[in-house]
Amino acid sequence: MAEKKWRTAITRHVEHETYVRGYRLLDLVGNLSFAQAIYLVLKGELPNEAESKMMEAIFVSVIDHGIAPPSVIAARAVASGGNSLNVGVAAGVMAFGSAHGGALEDAMRFIQENVASGRPVNEVVSEYMSQKKPIPGFGHRYYKEFDPRTRRLMELAKTYGFYGKHCEFAEKVEEEIFKQKGKRIVLNVDGAIAAVASEMGFDWRLGKGFFIIGRVPGLVAHVYEELTTEKPFSKRLNEEEETEYTGVPPRELPVEFKKV
Amino acid sequence: MAEKKWRTAITRHVEHETYVRGYRLLDLVGNLSFAQAIYLVLKGELPNEAESKMMEAIFVSVIDHGIAPPSVIAARAVASGGNSLNVGVAAGVMAFGSAHGGALEDAMRFIQENVASGRPVNEVVSEYMSQKKPIPGFGHRYYKEFDPRTRRLMELAKTYGFYGKHCEFAEKVEEEIFKQKGKRIVLNVDGAIAAVASEMGFDWRLGKGFFIIGRVPGLVAHVYEELTTEKPFSKRLNEEEETEYTGVPPRELPVEFKKV
Amino acid sequence: MAEKKWRTAITRHVEHETYVRGYRLLDLVGNLSFAQAIYLVLKGELPNEAESKMMEAIFVSVIDHGIAPPSVIAARAVASGGNSLNVGVAAGVMAFGSAHGGALEDAMRFIQENVASGRPVNEVVSEYMSQKKPIPGFGHRYYKEFDPRTRRLMELAKTYGFYGKHCEFAEKVEEEIFKQKGKRIVLNVDGAIAAVASEMGFDWRLGKGFFIIGRVPGLVAHVYEELTTEKPFSKRLNEEEETEYTGVPPRELPVEFKKV
Amino acid sequence: MAEKKWRTAITRHVEHETYVRGYRLLDLVGNLSFAQAIYLVLKGELPNEAESKMMEAIFVSVIDHGIAPPSVIAARAVASGGNSLNVGVAAGVMAFGSAHGGALEDAMRFIQENVASGRPVNEVVSEYMSQKKPIPGFGHRYYKEFDPRTRRLMELAKTYGFYGKHCEFAEKVEEEIFKQKGKRIVLNVDGAIAAVASEMGFDWRLGKGFFIIGRVPGLVAHVYEELTTEKPFSKRLNEEEETEYTGVPPRELPVEFKKV
Repeated sequence: MAEKKWRTAITRHVEHETYVRGYRLLDLVGNLSFAQAIYLVLKGELPNEAESKMMEAIFVSVIDHGIAPPSVIAARAVASGGNSLNVGVAAGVMAFGSAHGGALEDAMRFIQENVASGRPVNEVVSEYMSQKKPIPGFGHRYYKEFDPRTRRLMELAKTYGFYGKHCEFAEKVEEEIFKQKGKRIVLNVDGAIAAVASEMGFDWRLGKGFFIIGRVPGLVAHVYEELTTEKPFSKRLNEEEETEYTGVPPRELPVEFKKV
Repeated sequence: MAEKKWRTAITRHVEHETYVRGYRLLDLVGNLSFAQAIYLVLKGELPNEAESKMMEAIFVSVIDHGIAPPSVIAARAVASGGNSLNVGVAAGVMAFGSAHGGALEDAMRFIQENVASGRPVNEVVSEYMSQKKPIPGFGHRYYKEFDPRTRRLMELAKTYGFYGKHCEFAEKVEEEIFKQKGKRIVLNVDGAIAAVASEMGFDWRLGKGFFIIGRVPGLVAHVYEELTTEKPFSKRLNEEEETEYTGVPPRELPVEFKKV
Repeated sequence: MAEKKWRTAITRHVEHETYVRGYRLLDLVGNLSFAQAIYLVLKGELPNEAESKMMEAIFVSVIDHGIAPPSVIAARAVASGGNSLNVGVAAGVMAFGSAHGGALEDAMRFIQENVASGRPVNEVVSEYMSQKKPIPGFGHRYYKEFDPRTRRLMELAKTYGFYGKHCEFAEKVEEEIFKQKGKRIVLNVDGAIAAVASEMGFDWRLGKGFFIIGRVPGLVAHVYEELTTEKPFSKRLNEEEETEYTGVPPRELPVEFKKV
Repeated sequence: MAEKKWRTAITRHVEHETYVRGYRLLDLVGNLSFAQAIYLVLKGELPNEAESKMMEAIFVSVIDHGIAPPSVIAARAVASGGNSLNVGVAAGVMAFGSAHGGALEDAMRFIQENVASGRPVNEVVSEYMSQKKPIPGFGHRYYKEFDPRTRRLMELAKTYGFYGKHCEFAEKVEEEIFKQKGKRIVLNVDGAIAAVASEMGFDWRLGKGFFIIGRVPGLVAHVYEELTTEKPFSKRLNEEEETEYTGVPPRELPVEFKKV
């Protein structure tokens, strides 16, 4: 028999009943919290109490960050063009590229690969310092001593038993940067989530998924707000006053192009 | 002072601290479940215990439905073109148009407008019947007696105190269709969620948002699976064997077009 | 034999050769202009000289409209999140909803249905006037006497033989509005393209396609410019100075939510 | 004065008139072919006769490739979810990632960097061979002796005067692979376009743009066909017969999760 072209280990139907990761979906409804069901879908197994609590905290920590990020600008602009809720939200999700949510993935990879290799922290840090590469998950525009969100997540990680080698590594990197550079470059909230999610055994390739799942409710709220309180084709940018034209001045079309 | 072009009631920053719907985000982390935070972001207020439980159940009920829906086909095809997790997930969200998740919005509108107007149920149903229009939120390919997911959600609605006039209306419509048509067209899971969400006071314009938020984790799992277990540029469709060409047969380019 | 699930009349392969609408693709390369090939793909037949010229003019007329439209805002915001050229361009295309390019489709439908029905122009106009509905393809913020782009396209339509009943109808509507209202609401560029494309026999359901195809090169240029000349995660919106927060002031999380 | 946050060199408005790259848009309509206008938008200058012809040929060469590529699957699936033409087309453009159209960008980079560096071709090739890395723009599933599309484009490049050092380099690489490997890995159509576009002075970062612009008309035709000839929510994938479930078998929800 020919190999089938579509394969999945997530969900299947047996006699019109949906089974998610082996469990009857209907049994999950009313019995699992949304975050527990997300854990099941992503990891393939049910979370224990501590894992459940940690998941709830992670998703809540990124639920919205205001109207200014590129994702919200994109989502509201697309909605404003006269599109449905789903299309606006999708544009927001598209904006979550390497510079917007991507740090979570990069930081998970950084932490997981270095913890796995067992390389001394001072070596890892000095490599980045000497090449002047930013370390993913570190640094913040305003927080220069510590990131309060990181502190919060690390406290919770300790409470729920996820403060293990990945979190330790991340905090040691912060200390080592301070030692080598003489100033702090703080472990930011992306780095903190990355450390905890690594501790929970999630693959770094799934990193951006935490950000996407956690932030989509914020995007839904923004697009709904745009659609219900603003006029279509919003004039957010006044070309004359707010843009700089950096191109060539008006010029004549050469005569050889003039046909009509 | 000129009116500002960007306005929002969702989130703002005060001295680098994020406040969501008035609450300090950091206070929510560890204290709210993800579904509670979603309720806050969407509704502007914190949920009580019953509202929290109902929200968890609604999102879990739509978390995944297998590999076959157009949203998953689109998400996996886009990922397969060599794109990041966020781009694949966004394609899935785009697919949630009027024929895919849109029923939830339509059913909420149908229930809310008819409950608000107080029109007799038999009149409402006979109008749809005489025009042979499908009633949004009713009907299922396999379930001919009752939809087990509807039964589950309605039980929970009763348990948590959300079985009020919107749910009653929805179930009365099912009975009335049976009376007028002589056969059941069941209240399906979209209709059930629509009835409960209406009972909780959510605007129908936000209807698709419940589906989007609930299903995004499933999309994340599918795109992750595609990216980690399948080859890029997957050959899911064998043109020769699986497609029918309905166009004109090969023909010669007319001589007046032959330049080179 | 079971019916095949994928059907198309556009392109097929015969022994590794691609045939588009029956013509060998390789024969088209070098012999057709891009606009001629677009005509073939959309319409199924090769254009004559006049149709070719008219297509070139239509696409050129919408090729770019500056940085301010929602599509460019969305495209550049998505690119700025750290995404590839194709993802930014796609976000721009998504923005072409009913309020942004949709007028072309609506105007084509308006013209085609009314020309087909043969209703008197004064009746059509007075119906819209009495219901205070805008007529799709008419009206402009700045142009109060005539839209110079419309004049240009109509001249070309006359030159190439496409000034027939659809164009006449559109111009009669402009006159009739003037008669009934005492002031001009000009036939705008969307309306002009709609009239000409209708004259050429294109279905109004394809209307937005003209706008999409014509504007994509502009989107490519904008996203390329964003990616090569601007920093990632551009701070285009200064939340503090440029946004108005319309929500509730900071408030305390109720004590019953405080767990940790 | 504060620096403006939006900058562009593409288009600006002067007294309600649109100027694209310095030329009055209205002067371009009727005087430039679509491909010439695209050249202007992308490059900033008008093309000469040879550049115009070459551009037409390049875009025509990629205009459609049938229903099977991931971009068309995604576009039609999204449309099928109940979305407008623009949303379906956007999903198709999203699919143009590194594995689908991305080869054009990679091949342009490969050619431009190696031509600029002046490295001997045999060194370049042996480096790829020894690392078993595929050379972008080379190789084809069916064409083992030569790619007829490449031959066609190269002929045209010679006719129009674009067979210079970039095209020569590309063909030398093909010969060198043959010499080192004993078998041909043909310069494919992506590689051929890449060579010619490089010859014309286009930056490799714009490479995918050629593919996007050229293929969008095909996507418009496919989405239009889907919307007008197929039913919404198309059942293209029969889960039971066409998918393989690779996950865990049905299992019981552990008793500690059973609340209701």
